[in-house]
Amino acid sequence: MTSDRLIYLPLGGAGEIGMNAYVYGYGKPGEERLILVDIGVTFPDMDGTPGVDLILPDITWLKERRNQLEAVFITHAHEDHVGAVGHHYESLGAPIIARAFTANIARGKLSEYGIPDKAVRTASAWPEQVSFGPFKVGFLPISHSIPESSALVIDTPAGRVIHTGDFKLDANPLVGEAFDPDLWAEVARPGVRALVCDSTNVFSPAPGRSESTLGPNIQALIASAPGMMVSTTFASNVARVKTLAEAADRAGRSVCLLGRAMRRMIEASIETGVLTDFPKVVSPEDAQSIPRENLMLIVTGSQGERRAASAQLARGKYLGFEMKEGDTFLFSSKTIPGNEKGVIRIMNAFSEKGVEIVDDNGGMYHVSGHANRPDLERMHQIVDPQMVIPMHGEHRHLREHAKLAKSLGREGIIAVNGTMLDLSGNAPTVAEYVETGRTYLDGSTQIGAMDGIVRDRIRMALNGHVTVTVIIDEDDEPLGDPWCDVMGLAEMGRSRAPLVDVMEEDLSQFLNRAGQATLTDDDKLGEALRRVVRQTAQDEIGKKPEVTVVVSRLS
Amino acid sequence: MTSDRLIYLPLGGAGEIGMNAYVYGYGKPGEERLILVDIGVTFPDMDGTPGVDLILPDITWLKERRNQLEAVFITHAHEDHVGAVGHHYESLGAPIIARAFTANIARGKLSEYGIPDKAVRTASAWPEQVSFGPFKVGFLPISHSIPESSALVIDTPAGRVIHTGDFKLDANPLVGEAFDPDLWAEVARPGVRALVCDSTNVFSPAPGRSESTLGPNIQALIASAPGMMVSTTFASNVARVKTLAEAADRAGRSVCLLGRAMRRMIEASIETGVLTDFPKVVSPEDAQSIPRENLMLIVTGSQGERRAASAQLARGKYLGFEMKEGDTFLFSSKTIPGNEKGVIRIMNAFSEKGVEIVDDNGGMYHVSGHANRPDLERMHQIVDPQMVIPMHGEHRHLREHAKLAKSLGREGIIAVNGTMLDLSGNAPTVAEYVETGRTYLDGSTQIGAMDGIVRDRIRMALNGHVTVTVIIDEDDEPLGDPWCDVMGLAEMGRSRAPLVDVMEEDLSQFLNRAGQATLTDDDKLGEALRRVVRQTAQDEIGKKPEVTVVVSRLS
Repeated sequence: MTSDRLIYLPLGGAGEIGMNAYVYGYGKPGEERLILVDIGVTFPDMDGTPGVDLILPDITWLKERRNQLEAVFITHAHEDHVGAVGHHYESLGAPIIARAFTANIARGKLSEYGIPDKAVRTASAWPEQVSFGPFKVGFLPISHSIPESSALVIDTPAGRVIHTGDFKLDANPLVGEAFDPDLWAEVARPGVRALVCDSTNVFSPAPGRSESTLGPNIQALIASAPGMMVSTTFASNVARVKTLAEAADRAGRSVCLLGRAMRRMIEASIETGVLTDFPKVVSPEDAQSIPRENLMLIVTGSQGERRAASAQLARGKYLGFEMKEGDTFLFSSKTIPGNEKGVIRIMNAFSEKGVEIVDDNGGMYHVSGHANRPDLERMHQIVDPQMVIPMHGEHRHLREHAKLAKSLGREGIIAVNGTMLDLSGNAPTVAEYVETGRTYLDGSTQIGAMDGIVRDRIRMALNGHVTVTVIIDEDDEPLGDPWCDVMGLAEMGRSRAPLVDVMEEDLSQFLNRAGQATLTDDDKLGEALRRVVRQTAQDEIGKKPEVTVVVSRLS
Repeated sequence: MTSDRLIYLPLGGAGEIGMNAYVYGYGKPGEERLILVDIGVTFPDMDGTPGVDLILPDITWLKERRNQLEAVFITHAHEDHVGAVGHHYESLGAPIIARAFTANIARGKLSEYGIPDKAVRTASAWPEQVSFGPFKVGFLPISHSIPESSALVIDTPAGRVIHTGDFKLDANPLVGEAFDPDLWAEVARPGVRALVCDSTNVFSPAPGRSESTLGPNIQALIASAPGMMVSTTFASNVARVKTLAEAADRAGRSVCLLGRAMRRMIEASIETGVLTDFPKVVSPEDAQSIPRENLMLIVTGSQGERRAASAQLARGKYLGFEMKEGDTFLFSSKTIPGNEKGVIRIMNAFSEKGVEIVDDNGGMYHVSGHANRPDLERMHQIVDPQMVIPMHGEHRHLREHAKLAKSLGREGIIAVNGTMLDLSGNAPTVAEYVETGRTYLDGSTQIGAMDGIVRDRIRMALNGHVTVTVIIDEDDEPLGDPWCDVMGLAEMGRSRAPLVDVMEEDLSQFLNRAGQATLTDDDKLGEALRRVVRQTAQDEIGKKPEVTVVVSRLS
């Protein structure tokens, strides 16, 4: 008889930053009862995923075992942790468990899919624990850049696992619970089998700074700003939004929030009691009558997103507001790698309007929400686990974090998405490799990452597209001339005649020479025409376009 | 009678970083004799310019005045200064003037277009000056991240202008001439009307550091690396390549250069006498027999370029080399904004192989080639010009640099591409706005940035593409059923039938109802069919594709 085992299986978030989805299981191999921790999304880009709306983890493995799944726990309300809860809820068929603020956001996402609020159960913080099958799970408060972020204390017959979620060690996070080292030490005292730990900032050598260090800097900046003051930050960073609002308030400025996400997050914070004393805000309409030197806008779009409030303000008038010479725009944020061009575009647009642009200025106006290297060391020491499993990081982060764990005398292992670890022994071992991947939300449908749809889009973007139409009559002879339509290609090339004319001429010549074997076989004919068009385009304009050949037969 | 004037007109490089092209003119308005300083390129990306090979400044204004153009001066051999010399040479029809190293590189570019070497004249450094029309121009040595970078001393009847080119103030640049403040002061002594000045690093608050500060750090790193050592940097940063090679040499490692650009730059440096004592290099073939701990590769691809040596090594075996556990890869470079994802992709690929990755580590292994804010201040003070014209920067850099000039008590003005300044008076004034822009080298042709070709590519990438084919018979009735082909779209949507079938069904229904007025008018019919297909796709998959409609008439 095989004995029960404790497994860990990242389906997303390990080997990448984004779309977190971590499975834990306990039981006989293949029959484990399962829980899922987080179910997030990641964002598409023009480079690799043009036209895609959202990227979701491929959770086929879990769907095929939905009868083993007990519950889904959400550590906090960032998109990369909760964003896919609506898309995947029905196929998982398990209850969602989260603390009040996170539950509020999750319910909002589920309601877009017509799923009732009761799908999400609100949990209290540690020491409460909820039982599902062999698991007893508690939400252990930890500081991060969003309210009520929690680590999960996962008790199993094989011992205690602590899954940190995203965290920093902030003794004064302004909104939400401070990191409490005594509480954590107490939780760790009975012994911890595995610490599954955020790796994002493992390459940052200095200890992390507290959210509370920013207030005085922001206040000084706002107090000295002559015109309208506008600040952007992540909407979910409620503490930062509050710091910005309070600094404005102290400087005698009315606060106006712009952007759907900004209002949604503040509402959720107030509804759930996370935020109690936020300065009074004015509506965009009321703000119009306030002198600009008495106004502070707090807006979405810190990453340069084209449709967010920052980008709208950069382009021109937005909801009656228009930035101008003497105004100040503060990025109380850092730019996530890949978003630089969008952010720079906005900075230059503001510069053209004569607006003062202030970025985080080496940390004066922004602190990270993740634990830096010395903080990770401290976490390892406080929890003192038998093994450390780095998560929430690209491969290089996981590798560095595993090395760090080993340098501190503990077992560490790199487990990227699809690596099922057996945590039952003295050291983690790889039990199995599971196929994982991504699916794309594309318009209103889901498409696979590997099914060639997006690849075809990228090819059209790189190479342009030609449609070739040929009519074949009842006698298998071409009727009239072939026809070309192009999209995304130069109109004229080497021979100084329209590209379309040259292609049609070459196709005509080919058809005149073509034998019955070609003309009677659609596949053969299509392939031959495609080849002619690509060769002609290559000669004329130096590009090989994508080609759609339509052969219409009158027979 | 109108009097002569001195004009400055950036056609590229002002309001952007890239594709530098600055015109100076002297004479009666509209009849000025002209010189062009630099003629560079900028690089395309998937976001805005998919499929494009290179972006060039649109120099139509200058082409229309080619009979007024005296000469083209190249300050240094970076792509954003010399990259378009081959493409634009014929249409400009003026001699190219550059110092030996730059001339060597320019000749290589011209030879690709079959243009003979003599198109480029080699100039000596200051105090030599060459005369063209009303201009006397000298190449004043200045340090930068490539050999023989030079400022231009442009003497005109209206006084002396100093065009800095790209520069830093390095007293010990290792390769090439050090910045010589005494020489610069001497050149400035007669009085300088305008300093046209690099703005790239105006936001960097600390004084720039010398290239010579890196050697000891790099040496220590290489000495402690256990396996194969691989370093990447810009190939044109010959001083850095030398520093890397010498550090390897001292550590008892043989040096092997990988990447066409790397070998080209070192060859040009040796040919022109810029580089005299470069350590002996081994060929990739000979390197195979050298133990990896005795080997150092210096490779191209510091910006994550997919086809460069770094990316090839990250993907697997390249020219017989394969990175593995225990090897070290050093980025002796910084990542240019926009290239982050490509660089990170390589880092993670190396991480998966167990390779130690070392980045610039906060400046330990890389220094910038541009003057920081305090260096700019020093430059303003040494030259003490009547006016400062910031160039080589995005709008935000130009704006900040103009503010800096004013704060130091000098005239400063923001002049973006297309802004013609009159420099004849006590302060710069805007004389005219000239239409400027970009053209794209696309395959073997040039296309306009605004002619819709690239826009169509982007739309196909975002929305996918549908081809609709309909045959109309001699009686203006549809013959058979309409036909759809899709590319880059989900195969199935809301109604769980193939998308193509649903579209064809809707098109059939439309055609059955369509009246003669529609069926006899190709434009009307095409537009109607396009609308049907887009609506059906929207209903089925939530996307509105690009559509090509082909109506074939048998009449």
